[in-house]
Amino acid sequence: MRMFDIIKKKRDGGQLSDKEIAWFIDGYVKGEIPDYQAAALCMAIYYKGMTIDETTALTFAIRDSGERLDFSNIDGLRVDKHSTGGVGDKTSLIVAPIVASLGVKVAKMSGRGLGHTGGTIDKLESIEGFCTDISVSDFVKIVNETGIAIVGQNATLAPADKLLYALRDVTATVDSLPLIVSSIMGKKLAADDDCIVLDVKTGSGSFMKTVEDSKNLAETMVDIGKRAGKKMCALITDMDRPLGFAIGNSLEVIEAIETLNGNGPEDLTELCVALASYMLSLAEKGSYDECKQNVLRVINDGTALNTFANMVEAQGGNKEWIYNPENFPKAKYQSEVLSEKSGYITSVNTEGYGVASLLLGAGRNTMADKIDFAAGIHLCKKTGDYVEKGEKIAVLYAEDESKFAAAEKCFVNATVIGDQKPCEMPLILDVVGG
Amino acid sequence: MRMFDIIKKKRDGGQLSDKEIAWFIDGYVKGEIPDYQAAALCMAIYYKGMTIDETTALTFAIRDSGERLDFSNIDGLRVDKHSTGGVGDKTSLIVAPIVASLGVKVAKMSGRGLGHTGGTIDKLESIEGFCTDISVSDFVKIVNETGIAIVGQNATLAPADKLLYALRDVTATVDSLPLIVSSIMGKKLAADDDCIVLDVKTGSGSFMKTVEDSKNLAETMVDIGKRAGKKMCALITDMDRPLGFAIGNSLEVIEAIETLNGNGPEDLTELCVALASYMLSLAEKGSYDECKQNVLRVINDGTALNTFANMVEAQGGNKEWIYNPENFPKAKYQSEVLSEKSGYITSVNTEGYGVASLLLGAGRNTMADKIDFAAGIHLCKKTGDYVEKGEKIAVLYAEDESKFAAAEKCFVNATVIGDQKPCEMPLILDVVGG
Repeated sequence: MRMFDIIKKKRDGGQLSDKEIAWFIDGYVKGEIPDYQAAALCMAIYYKGMTIDETTALTFAIRDSGERLDFSNIDGLRVDKHSTGGVGDKTSLIVAPIVASLGVKVAKMSGRGLGHTGGTIDKLESIEGFCTDISVSDFVKIVNETGIAIVGQNATLAPADKLLYALRDVTATVDSLPLIVSSIMGKKLAADDDCIVLDVKTGSGSFMKTVEDSKNLAETMVDIGKRAGKKMCALITDMDRPLGFAIGNSLEVIEAIETLNGNGPEDLTELCVALASYMLSLAEKGSYDECKQNVLRVINDGTALNTFANMVEAQGGNKEWIYNPENFPKAKYQSEVLSEKSGYITSVNTEGYGVASLLLGAGRNTMADKIDFAAGIHLCKKTGDYVEKGEKIAVLYAEDESKFAAAEKCFVNATVIGDQKPCEMPLILDVVGG
Repeated sequence: MRMFDIIKKKRDGGQLSDKEIAWFIDGYVKGEIPDYQAAALCMAIYYKGMTIDETTALTFAIRDSGERLDFSNIDGLRVDKHSTGGVGDKTSLIVAPIVASLGVKVAKMSGRGLGHTGGTIDKLESIEGFCTDISVSDFVKIVNETGIAIVGQNATLAPADKLLYALRDVTATVDSLPLIVSSIMGKKLAADDDCIVLDVKTGSGSFMKTVEDSKNLAETMVDIGKRAGKKMCALITDMDRPLGFAIGNSLEVIEAIETLNGNGPEDLTELCVALASYMLSLAEKGSYDECKQNVLRVINDGTALNTFANMVEAQGGNKEWIYNPENFPKAKYQSEVLSEKSGYITSVNTEGYGVASLLLGAGRNTMADKIDFAAGIHLCKKTGDYVEKGEKIAVLYAEDESKFAAAEKCFVNATVIGDQKPCEMPLILDVVGG
C-alpha cells in the first residue's frame, strides 16, 4: 500500500477500505507516514467526508492504536458519560456519584483542559490532596469499593488520536464530522465501559453550529458505539449559555457540591438529572422515569454527596472540603463586572466566557501552564435576564489583579444586551438512541 | 500572520492576499512553516482553486524565492521555449539553434529528467565532452558568441518550487491548475528572458487531459507571463503520440540532428518549425509567415546545424559527432517488438512508452540513478499506421539484456491495436496569445 494512493482515492471522493484506514493509522503512529501526508489526507476528508463504514474503521483504528483497558475485574456494568465540550460544564462531577450511588460503576478516565477552563481532572485537583494519577489496580479497587473513581487519561490510550488531533489543530481540519467522531469515539472505546451517554453540545461555541449538524454528529457516534457492542445514547444540549453560574475549577466543584446537595442551579440540575437517568436506564436499572425517581431520591437523601465524598477520600482528597466547601481557598482578588446599559441579556458567547476565565488564570494555553484553582467567574445574570445599567452581571476572581482588565473586556464582548427578551429555548433539544 | 488562518481562509473558499501568499512562500523556504501546513494548504488549493491574482502572487513569490538571473550582459532579445512535458520531446535541441541562427539569443536553463526519459540536459550530455555545468560568466560569453547556450538549472533558482513540487508529488496535489502554473512560471520568470513560447501538451499522458483544460492552463500562463512584462504565446499540442520515432537520450539527439539537417520526421519538423517561428515573431523578427520562411531557409542551408555544432564545441563537446552521428556509441543489445495481431495502431499511451524507456535504462527513478545514454526505443510504427501480425513495431535498446522483458511488456500494454483506422488529429490544436 502507498499513502499517496490513499490520499488520491479520498481526494477523488472514493471510499477507503478498512485495511487502508488501519494501515494509515498504524503507519502514522509508528512514524512511517509523515505528518504532511496525514495533513493532506485530513484536508481531503474535510472536503469529501467519510461513509459510516469508513468512520467506523477510522474510529476502531484509533481505538486500537494503543493500550486497551480491561475492566473485567470491576463487578457489574460500567457506564461513562462524555461531553463534546462546554464552558462551565461540571456535570461529570455530579452525574458520576449519582449513578454510582445507584449501583452502576463509573471508572472514568478524563482529560485535562487546554484553552478555556480546566478539564474534570483539573477541577478535582482543586480539592486538597486529591490524586488523579493512580495505578490501574488501585483504580479498579476504588471502583469496586466506592462505585466510582476518576483518574487522568492514560498516555498510552489511543495515541493516534493525540497525534492526529495535534495535526488537525494546526491544519484547519478540526471541523470535520468523521474526524471529530473518530477522535471522540476512538478514545472512548479504548476504555472498557458497557454503556456510554453522550452530551453533544450545539450552538455558536461548539464544533457543531446547528441542531441538525449536532444531531448528525450524535447519530454517527451512537451508531459507531453500537457497532462496537456498547449501549449508547446521546443528548443534544444547548451550548449558547453556560451551565450554572460558576466557571473556574474550585468554583465549579463548589457548585457541583451544591447540586449534589439538591441546592444547585436549575439548568445544571435539570441536565444532570437527565444525564444520570439515561445512564442508569442504559445500564438496565429500570425505565427512564423510574431511574429519574431514584436519581432525585439519592440527591435528596444525601447518598450522592456521600458517594462523592467517599471517592474523594479514596483518592487521597480531604473529604471535609466536600461537606464544608468554605474550606476551598478563595482567590486573592475579585472584581465586579457592571452592565454598561439596561436591557435583556439576549445571547452570550460561551466560548468568550471560557477565554475570559482562561485569562483570569483558570485554564492553560499550553500543557506546561499552571492553573490557579480559585480563579474564574461567578455569573450573576444569565441569558434572558434583565439588567439595569450599572447592575452587577458577574464577579471575576484572580490571584493577580493585573489579569482583570483583559478578562473583563473579553467577558463584556461576549455578553450581548438588547431590548427584546430572547425566546426561551429548552436546554435539552433532542435525544438520540437509548 | 498565522499559517492556520491562511489555510482556513483558502479551505473556506476565500481569496488570499498577495501579502499572505508571499509570507507563506517565504516562511516555507526558510523552514519556518512546516510541510504539514503547506500540504494542507495545497490540498485546499486543489479543491478551491485560485483566482488569477492569487496565482500571479504565488508565481511571483516562487520566482522571488531564490536568485534571479540577470542577462543584461547578453546583447539583444532573449527567447525561451518551455514544454509542459512529453515523451520523446527533443524540440528544444532543434528550435534553439534555429532561432539563434536568425539573431535571437537563447540562454537556456534546463532540467534533468526524473521518471520517463532524460531531460534536455541529459540528452546533451550524451555528446562526448559536452559540459552543462558552466559558470554564469562563461554562459553569457558563449551566448554572445554563438547565440546559444544550454546549461543545467541553477540550484538557487526558485527553491520554493523544488520544495513545493516534492511535497505535491507525495500528497496527491500535483494536478491543480494554479499549482502547475505557478511551478512552471515561477521558474521561468526567475530567468531573464524577453519572450517565452510555451508548448502545452494535452491528452492522456499530460497534466491536462482535455483540450479545454490545456487551453485554460495555457491562457493562465500567458496572462501571468504578460503581467511579468514578458512577451508570451502558447501552443496547445497533442501528447497522445510521441514526437518523431526516437525515445532515449542519444537516439533523440541523433533525430534532432536529422531534423536540423532537413531530414527529420514530419510531425517533429512541423512542431519545431511552428515553435521556432512563434519564438522569432515574438522577438520582433517579422510576421509569422516571414519567420517561417527564414526557419525553413536556415534548416535547408545548414546554418541551424552549424549553430548547434558551434554551441556543442563552445560547451566542450565533440563537434564531429554532430556532423557524423554514427560516432554516438550504440547500445550493447537490441530487441525487436513484433505486433501480436493485425490492425491499426488506434492509440498509444505515451506515458507507457516513457516508462518502457525508463526500464531500458534511458531515465532515472531517483536523482542518484545513472542514465544509459544509448538505451531507448526506436518506433517503427506510430498511431494511425497499419501493422500485420508479427510485423516489427519498435526496436528496444539496452546495455543489459535482462531489461527487455519488463520494458517490452510495458511497451505492448501502451500500444492499442484495433480494426478501425483512427481519425487524424492535427498536431497543433490551438495557439494562445502571441
